[in-house]
Amino acid sequence: MSATVNRRFILRERPVGDFAPGVLQRVVEAVPTPGPGQALVRNLYLSLDPTNRIWMNEEPSYLPPVALGEVMRGIGVGQVVASNTSAYRVGAKVGGLLGWQDYAIISANDALRPSVIPSLLPVPLTSTLGVLGTNGMTAYFGLLHIGKPKRGETVVISAAAGGVGSIAGQIAKIYGARVVGIAGTHDKCNWLTQELGFDAAICRRDANWREQLAAACPNGVDIDFENVGGEIMEAVLQLMNTHGRVVLCGMISQYGKTTTDNIAPRNFGEILIRRLKLQGLIILDYMHRFPPAQLRMLWWLKRGKIKERSTIVQNLDNAPQALVQLFNGENIGKMLVEIGE
Amino acid sequence: MSATVNRRFILRERPVGDFAPGVLQRVVEAVPTPGPGQALVRNLYLSLDPTNRIWMNEEPSYLPPVALGEVMRGIGVGQVVASNTSAYRVGAKVGGLLGWQDYAIISANDALRPSVIPSLLPVPLTSTLGVLGTNGMTAYFGLLHIGKPKRGETVVISAAAGGVGSIAGQIAKIYGARVVGIAGTHDKCNWLTQELGFDAAICRRDANWREQLAAACPNGVDIDFENVGGEIMEAVLQLMNTHGRVVLCGMISQYGKTTTDNIAPRNFGEILIRRLKLQGLIILDYMHRFPPAQLRMLWWLKRGKIKERSTIVQNLDNAPQALVQLFNGENIGKMLVEIGE
Repeated sequence: MSATVNRRFILRERPVGDFAPGVLQRVVEAVPTPGPGQALVRNLYLSLDPTNRIWMNEEPSYLPPVALGEVMRGIGVGQVVASNTSAYRVGAKVGGLLGWQDYAIISANDALRPSVIPSLLPVPLTSTLGVLGTNGMTAYFGLLHIGKPKRGETVVISAAAGGVGSIAGQIAKIYGARVVGIAGTHDKCNWLTQELGFDAAICRRDANWREQLAAACPNGVDIDFENVGGEIMEAVLQLMNTHGRVVLCGMISQYGKTTTDNIAPRNFGEILIRRLKLQGLIILDYMHRFPPAQLRMLWWLKRGKIKERSTIVQNLDNAPQALVQLFNGENIGKMLVEIGE
Repeated sequence: MSATVNRRFILRERPVGDFAPGVLQRVVEAVPTPGPGQALVRNLYLSLDPTNRIWMNEEPSYLPPVALGEVMRGIGVGQVVASNTSAYRVGAKVGGLLGWQDYAIISANDALRPSVIPSLLPVPLTSTLGVLGTNGMTAYFGLLHIGKPKRGETVVISAAAGGVGSIAGQIAKIYGARVVGIAGTHDKCNWLTQELGFDAAICRRDANWREQLAAACPNGVDIDFENVGGEIMEAVLQLMNTHGRVVLCGMISQYGKTTTDNIAPRNFGEILIRRLKLQGLIILDYMHRFPPAQLRMLWWLKRGKIKERSTIVQNLDNAPQALVQLFNGENIGKMLVEIGE
């Protein structure tokens, strides 16, 4: 917490295809001084998310692109170390878009301003980036507001051992669904079934994963909580029941594709034939509804209904490589960087 | 109405690619005799619909495939000419799956049994295949139950001069939306804007149709009533506002594609980024809700709020060629065959 310089990762160039660390440039600057109405935050943890790749693209998405030469956008938590605003008192923990850097300047006037984390929150600070943060909220609203599981229905979750999928599956279990996860390693699959209570987990690297998936869904699929896209999504669509719902939460397998590729599922026509409802989810839309959802999540967490796991990479310097690892599926649970130094 | 034989079109082979008349075989049989509990219907009008092509495929869809050697499935209206059941009295008009033939045997025990048309219905019989039939109901439920237009929103309708699109657009106008149609000829476009009150209509054969479409939607697109798919759907998706709705009603441009083609919109990712809601619509799901919708439709029709137009091809013998014409977009409004002979 005593760094006397500000390490920052700047977007040097836009990635073509998959993310590579070289598109980010590490620079070292002086620790900035907060101006009027501003506060200085010492960052503690950085959240790595598949959507980081989307933000690097030139075309606007649900947020403006990160400008070239600007610090890489990232969600993080930190502690206020200097303040010229009553909105952020020194010592307070804050969470929000703090960027890939040691220090962030924040202001209560920012449209997407960081929020103050209650000091008595009875969970580790990292949980505010996981189960109580955008990952957990994405799982909550995606599953409950779009998927709307009914008792006994079958929910399939891709990237099920990731920060969103692992929470979505546990909520689906709370709601009485049959939950089938798709993940990238047998270790992850074992965690899902043995620790988190998933009814089945399929390793997508097994040669016969499609057959395993079909066998794990003897009554078809009612909800696809889709985090991966591509051939995994195609396989799930092919198992879906009439009037099933697709929570289109992410397509991590497709973000590195160039714009001339077709990232759509080739069996798109099944949406018509099976009368599926497919809805895109960007969690920003639900921010005003976070508090009651976070309370429920906290309750589940404390009662052991939801378990949380993180993969924490040490040192901000390793963040670019950690993002590569995220896209390679090397994390189990939420992928974080402890800023360090 | 005096035919003494039963002309029938049998599915001889499954089409590969676009429909060609040769996949149907015309046979002439004796007029069948109704058994116990059955009635004999003399068919009067046959409805031609893009979904006919789907029914010819080998893979099951929302209905079982038409079996090879079986009469081609089709929606029609006819008149009961002999009956062994109190469910269908002689002289009654009936509508339903009567097939591509002069005469149909029907039974009150059929799962999808034809329904009796009220004798005092104050519209032409053909309207029961159009605005009061599956076409009109598809427009009604698709627009109102999936699209849910709000006053001032922009609705884009592809195949807008077809049997479904022309009704959907007029309902959207009743609900106060800005309505933009996409159609295949300038004649159709003129009909849409001058007769039906569409705010704009774009001819997709114009070289700059994309620019025209964008210009016609200065506030973006809130609802895509999608009947065409392919590049037209892609162009509309690219104009959609955040939280827009896509009524996936049909993809007539894609039904002739072989299964290895990718019929999905290449900009599928916009569903995520723009948080669109996309829902497949098969009108069978709404059959139990038809009566009140038909009453509203009748009311609009009688008050001149909805205008109906049909393209009627004479003689069952011409039905295969008329289906080709439907796929070529040669019809304006509902495509029908008057059985004749």
